[in-house]
Amino acid sequence: MSDIEQLATSGAWLTPDDLSSARERLPIVYVDAVPVRVDDAGRVVAIGLLLRAMADDTISRAVVTGRVLYGETIRAALVRHLNKDLGPLAQPQLPPNPSPFTIVEYFPDPTVTGFVDPRQHAVSLAYIVPVLGECYPAPESLDFSWVTPAEAASKEVSSEMTGGQDRLVRMALAHVGCLP
Amino acid sequence: MSDIEQLATSGAWLTPDDLSSARERLPIVYVDAVPVRVDDAGRVVAIGLLLRAMADDTISRAVVTGRVLYGETIRAALVRHLNKDLGPLAQPQLPPNPSPFTIVEYFPDPTVTGFVDPRQHAVSLAYIVPVLGECYPAPESLDFSWVTPAEAASKEVSSEMTGGQDRLVRMALAHVGCLP
Amino acid sequence: MSDIEQLATSGAWLTPDDLSSARERLPIVYVDAVPVRVDDAGRVVAIGLLLRAMADDTISRAVVTGRVLYGETIRAALVRHLNKDLGPLAQPQLPPNPSPFTIVEYFPDPTVTGFVDPRQHAVSLAYIVPVLGECYPAPESLDFSWVTPAEAASKEVSSEMTGGQDRLVRMALAHVGCLP
Amino acid sequence: MSDIEQLATSGAWLTPDDLSSARERLPIVYVDAVPVRVDDAGRVVAIGLLLRAMADDTISRAVVTGRVLYGETIRAALVRHLNKDLGPLAQPQLPPNPSPFTIVEYFPDPTVTGFVDPRQHAVSLAYIVPVLGECYPAPESLDFSWVTPAEAASKEVSSEMTGGQDRLVRMALAHVGCLP
Repeated sequence: MSDIEQLATSGAWLTPDDLSSARERLPIVYVDAVPVRVDDAGRVVAIGLLLRAMADDTISRAVVTGRVLYGETIRAALVRHLNKDLGPLAQPQLPPNPSPFTIVEYFPDPTVTGFVDPRQHAVSLAYIVPVLGECYPAPESLDFSWVTPAEAASKEVSSEMTGGQDRLVRMALAHVGCLP
Repeated sequence: MSDIEQLATSGAWLTPDDLSSARERLPIVYVDAVPVRVDDAGRVVAIGLLLRAMADDTISRAVVTGRVLYGETIRAALVRHLNKDLGPLAQPQLPPNPSPFTIVEYFPDPTVTGFVDPRQHAVSLAYIVPVLGECYPAPESLDFSWVTPAEAASKEVSSEMTGGQDRLVRMALAHVGCLP
Repeated sequence: MSDIEQLATSGAWLTPDDLSSARERLPIVYVDAVPVRVDDAGRVVAIGLLLRAMADDTISRAVVTGRVLYGETIRAALVRHLNKDLGPLAQPQLPPNPSPFTIVEYFPDPTVTGFVDPRQHAVSLAYIVPVLGECYPAPESLDFSWVTPAEAASKEVSSEMTGGQDRLVRMALAHVGCLP
Repeated sequence: MSDIEQLATSGAWLTPDDLSSARERLPIVYVDAVPVRVDDAGRVVAIGLLLRAMADDTISRAVVTGRVLYGETIRAALVRHLNKDLGPLAQPQLPPNPSPFTIVEYFPDPTVTGFVDPRQHAVSLAYIVPVLGECYPAPESLDFSWVTPAEAASKEVSSEMTGGQDRLVRMALAHVGCLP
């Protein structure tokens, strides 16, 4: 078991009670990763969306997301969450630069930024991550599917996302030049 | 007193003990702001450096930096720390895009990223902020001075910075095309 | 008359025939600048749109755009076009970093990228430029108006733009975190 | 032969005389690509440098660079030059976003930006490109080698680069968080 896996599963850092208490008093560091398929020239041809139970009690489509643990680097957190959500054969290609394409600020209050997390104030670093291999989502996800950029920006798919994830996907599409 | 000022000074969020405890178990969200003077075409002509007592017990040059509070947006935290460190007449021009030019990961252990904070694991969003007005640094700073990009990248000035702040300044200079 | 103004108006570089000939054989360097109003925390509150006769023979809304001349820096070209299109009192705040938020590739053929210029293959570096002063657009523009981010992304305003400028505006809105 | 290869080799666009003439009157669009090796978490572990005869008549180390042809997209130009300079097995992973990490403005006059091309005024879009496969540089290159980030930023390697390429490499290192 690698250090990072141990770190992720040991639970030594925060008990559920402690985490719950911290969430009421500190912004929590998150990462969001938008999985994409690219062609030989790096152009995005598809966006990967999970279907999962969300913190807001809906079943919704979502990108890969998760907390950064104490002592864990951003890259290690990205690798861990991508591995957990897309399976060990996904071969995610993390960008060489550490700068996220945007910052998403989630608040329990939906009027602050429009990005909502009912549990906490989270500051999420958002990345676009090309995935070369096959994706086998974790059992806790109900589904994983690739959609075209046009589908990802459509009203139909947007309506299946909550908490502002549809806006995050459109921001990702804009960043890669694929927003219709 | 504005909401943000109240939020910053009330201490209602975390007692010193609570903060100390949280710092041992969660990465803490920070912002770093590199103050710059620009010419009429937006070209950086000077970098602003504070002289202050640091968390590592040195007196060193440093950029503007500080914690993001619970419930506070990144922009509000930047405005608050810039106001506190450069005075109320500085007129900082925050970038319209929320994406930082880099992410700095500070760890107590200097071997992880080379960026060091002896108190905590901090994830800092770093911005370059043009300043139009006059700077009157807070009493807790010993000095504030503008240096040229070449001076900021020099060995002499670098040797007056600790915890990796000299590297952060060089990364900022590179981002604005002024690294010698 | 400044060097740049002289450079812009002298016409010594290319006769209309020469320019026309070059346009058939080389990609031409352009800049696009999206003028924005920001609040005290740098958040975009309005987008500036010109109303003008376009290369495609329509009267359309558009952002500031123009060619980079031989011997002219990108910053000088931006200052020149912003000055010409928004007037001498606009006080545009060019970003300190030279990296554009996106690259727009205009082709006569609308199927290549969806960005169209019937005259030429242009590679345009696109920037978001906060404007502090008053805008008095040049006589060749029919109008200039500020619209909210929501209006800028609306179908109504989008339908008044051609050549892909509506997509460019949405990409700019996404970059500053204001795409609805 | 693909369309792009045909476009690259046909020579139908500009005769040498025409290109020479255009270079005296228009900025020419270029791309610069810094080849990098990354680890499983996307962290840059090596920089690839060619050894080649340069436009300034030196034999110097350099990154991949070349002109964008009329009708060619930026991505197609990057693929073509990477293929030509690193060989057909390099498997370059172009970034999904079209925004370059910086813009390099080359002028015959070394005092304008410090980036020099004795032949022309070139505006170059600079990208960092992870390379997964083996590199077999074209016969016109004398050598290709991988160096560590620390070596790439060293005085020794810098002194083997001309025209500002050493600065471009340091800017790339800063962007990926690897500038010493």
